Amino acid sequence: MFISFEGIDKCGKSTQMDLFTRYLEENAIEYTRVREPGGTELGERIRQILLHQEHQEMCARSELLLFLASRAQLVESVIKKALSEDKVVVADRFAHSSIAYQGCGRGLGMKTVRILNDFATDMVYPEIVFFIDIPPEVAIERLENSGEGGKDRIEKEQIEFWERVRGCYLEMAREYSQFVRIDGMLGVDQIHERIIREFQQRYNK
Amino acid sequence: MFISFEGIDKCGKSTQMDLFTRYLEENAIEYTRVREPGGTELGERIRQILLHQEHQEMCARSELLLFLASRAQLVESVIKKALSEDKVVVADRFAHSSIAYQGCGRGLGMKTVRILNDFATDMVYPEIVFFIDIPPEVAIERLENSGEGGKDRIEKEQIEFWERVRGCYLEMAREYSQFVRIDGMLGVDQIHERIIREFQQRYNK
Repeated sequence: MFISFEGIDKCGKSTQMDLFTRYLEENAIEYTRVREPGGTELGERIRQILLHQEHQEMCARSELLLFLASRAQLVESVIKKALSEDKVVVADRFAHSSIAYQGCGRGLGMKTVRILNDFATDMVYPEIVFFIDIPPEVAIERLENSGEGGKDRIEKEQIEFWERVRGCYLEMAREYSQFVRIDGMLGVDQIHERIIREFQQRYNK
Repeated sequence: MFISFEGIDKCGKSTQMDLFTRYLEENAIEYTRVREPGGTELGERIRQILLHQEHQEMCARSELLLFLASRAQLVESVIKKALSEDKVVVADRFAHSSIAYQGCGRGLGMKTVRILNDFATDMVYPEIVFFIDIPPEVAIERLENSGEGGKDRIEKEQIEFWERVRGCYLEMAREYSQFVRIDGMLGVDQIHERIIREFQQRYNK
């Protein structure tokens, strides 16, 4: 089973992924955790290019294509293998991040990014997408409080950008049955319980 | 005017590009020379990833997407600007290399690569493609004589691979009016004369 965690930055994905993978361990369910961009030697090199300041001039099309190159390698050398061994794959971001961030955030278009995703993923997509939803203002507040403001290129974006990204996630949540929208303003434990409940329902099938 | 030079490795592209750009200089025609992958800061970083040995495990889709990421940036920050200043752009490989090498050589399919090229190039394509055509056996002989055999990842490929690539170039030469196929077994001067003749005919229009 392939599961991804999505949402705008600072939505609480990492915390929830930690809790979820601990749950998997406690229940002796084998899993592989991956992150994007990255997760392979090639992907980590691409990650360095994407998240560092000196490439301010990178055009939106190149940015998307680099995310896709990292994704293709991750699918090919990690995800397909893990799924074939019946492991649960837990992904920190996957194809839907590109639709939200590059398709809507950067304005390349949802349809265009979908077509490119189909190529990069070789049609391997998550069966559950946990979308942790918070308003952009909360994300920015959390970012400022964490002292990380302006740390890397992508986090420097403006609030309008994050609103487009969130709007896109909400649209996908309505459209795709794999999406599970969770209110990110709930407490950490409540969100975790919701995730476990959904997982149990779908995993046992 | 946008011109690219294409053909399998060792076809004589570099020599002909040197002669052609010298001709442009002698005739006071302004030009910008670019190469792929590369030509921008981002592109050169991608070039390093693509042409170095340690990434033997790179999947064909990632390889193509990295070429496309480099291409998108080259179009956006170099080619569009040069063309808007009425310069001649002289490219050592461009989109058709991906169709030949990744589409046919690696088997991703010509149509798929065309669609992805349309995105990466933002529909900016050369008006003349000088395709210098040599048989793969000659390429391999030249490679061995030059002492470069096995120097980088891409040049390690087999003769069947090069035959698919060459076959694809021949197919494009029949299909696309921009293509000018030149017999790469002719002498250096004869090839150069042919290139200049074609250029003069099309440039004066």
